[in-house]
Amino acid sequence: MAEVREVRLKSRPVGMPTHENFEIASVTLRDPGPGEVQVKDLWMTVDPYMRGRMNDVKSYAPPYALGEAMHGGAVGQVTASNDPGFQAGDLVLSQLGWREGFTAPAAGLQKLDSRGLPPQAFLGVAGMPGLTAYAGLLRVAALKADDVVFVSGAAGAVGSVVCQIAKAKGHRVIGSAGGAEKAEFLRSIGVDHVIDYKAEKDLNAALAAGAPEGIDVYFDNVGGAHLEAALNSARLFARFAICGMISIYNATEPPPGPRNLAQLIGKNIRMEGFIVSHHFDLMPKYIEDLSGWVRAGKVTWKETVFEGIEKAPDAFLGLFTGENLGKMLVKLG
Amino acid sequence: MAEVREVRLKSRPVGMPTHENFEIASVTLRDPGPGEVQVKDLWMTVDPYMRGRMNDVKSYAPPYALGEAMHGGAVGQVTASNDPGFQAGDLVLSQLGWREGFTAPAAGLQKLDSRGLPPQAFLGVAGMPGLTAYAGLLRVAALKADDVVFVSGAAGAVGSVVCQIAKAKGHRVIGSAGGAEKAEFLRSIGVDHVIDYKAEKDLNAALAAGAPEGIDVYFDNVGGAHLEAALNSARLFARFAICGMISIYNATEPPPGPRNLAQLIGKNIRMEGFIVSHHFDLMPKYIEDLSGWVRAGKVTWKETVFEGIEKAPDAFLGLFTGENLGKMLVKLG
Repeated sequence: MAEVREVRLKSRPVGMPTHENFEIASVTLRDPGPGEVQVKDLWMTVDPYMRGRMNDVKSYAPPYALGEAMHGGAVGQVTASNDPGFQAGDLVLSQLGWREGFTAPAAGLQKLDSRGLPPQAFLGVAGMPGLTAYAGLLRVAALKADDVVFVSGAAGAVGSVVCQIAKAKGHRVIGSAGGAEKAEFLRSIGVDHVIDYKAEKDLNAALAAGAPEGIDVYFDNVGGAHLEAALNSARLFARFAICGMISIYNATEPPPGPRNLAQLIGKNIRMEGFIVSHHFDLMPKYIEDLSGWVRAGKVTWKETVFEGIEKAPDAFLGLFTGENLGKMLVKLG
Repeated sequence: MAEVREVRLKSRPVGMPTHENFEIASVTLRDPGPGEVQVKDLWMTVDPYMRGRMNDVKSYAPPYALGEAMHGGAVGQVTASNDPGFQAGDLVLSQLGWREGFTAPAAGLQKLDSRGLPPQAFLGVAGMPGLTAYAGLLRVAALKADDVVFVSGAAGAVGSVVCQIAKAKGHRVIGSAGGAEKAEFLRSIGVDHVIDYKAEKDLNAALAAGAPEGIDVYFDNVGGAHLEAALNSARLFARFAICGMISIYNATEPPPGPRNLAQLIGKNIRMEGFIVSHHFDLMPKYIEDLSGWVRAGKVTWKETVFEGIEKAPDAFLGLFTGENLGKMLVKLG
């Protein structure tokens, strides 16, 4: 495996990305120098936040460089090690996805104790998306007894975990997702009221029907009309964890915000944006809680898998057309 | 004073209110029954939130009834008492403004200890607007060391107190207000960088110039373009206290929210709406702090005074055209 393929950003997308923005290239890996390892990637993740990194603007993550391989979470297996901490066969988590393998300093890698879970779970339910759900619901939105919870993007990698944590804690949950298959999945994981937003003419009415007394927590993965409906249905002192706004990531000019934002005032709503990297301290506690929920059958998950590095752009583009049920992954090994 | 005048809501405004929406009527006050007092109002307040109460929609305060006198803060003097707790000459705070006097149960009134302040100060700096500033800045926005503070509507009854509390606590303050007189007032109370938004073509650039390293706290009285600029200039973990959005109160259709709302996510911004009635517990502490600041010359205030109940609609309408420097008041007695 001296020769591997990688996906490079060829040009910066304007609006919705296309295959033209990506190119597949082959590179030859060097042998690991002192303190380095060589890794074969088994799985890589594609996530909505990566769209922002394709723009040449300053954000919380630096932009991807043109003509270079992109970055992102991956699970791989060490094939050669020149570092005493790693040996061939070790599973590792890295930020060196979008490629079939790499040679890199061992210091940037995390050895994976898979705890009986499939390794790709650490790119989803047991990884950043899962922790995003946990931190957003419990810390940012500060879930408390009797809260009614509304989740958009509810069938996705983050949203489906939010729904299940809220259900495991005994809350009424309203989940919104697009299409019958996702709606069925939400019902299967115990969501109390499912909104198939693609089948609804009036999201405000659909949410009001699902939460006639209003909502206390909104976990936002979508923005746009979902955020507006959540404001309309919010009760006094509602808390909104703003995790993502996938509905606008590909807009060439960002659409206006909700017209009903002034409801923040009279309803004393707290709306808080967050990114998971500020909540890594919760990871050990999350993994402990998650293990219990998985054992008790309270948290399960779905994966949508594309095979082969050449399909990585398809997997990524599919995020924006809603092709994924649960975690979108690319299987490389 | 058996005969008094009052201002009634004659019709519900659509968009910006006009004089047609109000009518002045005379009523005869009954003698106070057991537990009642008769009061001559000396001062009444007009505040932007009253615009919302003129609409027939459910909100945190019930709508004003058509054909009846409106309500709002007033300071008056007892002229006759049939309650052992009050005697003629007592100063009282009530929610029975918009009239020259009233007979009402003493239980709904608060006896005023003026602590050497002019009585109308209890409708402004020492009353709800002052407490709004205090609670919004210190509790909702959770002001902390080294925060850079941006205030819109900075020359108003609330905003001018926010600026001065932040200055008293040693912060850099950027204040925005409309017109040269207000800008001069802001400089006189120590605001570090003053934006006269009426003289600026690009509010984003004006704020960026005043806060080249960004802002940590935004106290929003205005909404609209000011909120958008604040989002653009916000630093990581900025906190926005959303107190008012006067820029949109008279819109027949609420304008869209800011296009850059997704910045909440990457910057981990907390945006929290609030109304002062949930923070009355802070009043004693605020009055104590305020007394110290006033003695030390760190907090001062301005009043814009209209004389006579027949001018109350003018005073109210003037709030939306920016005619007030500091607290807008109507002197009745």
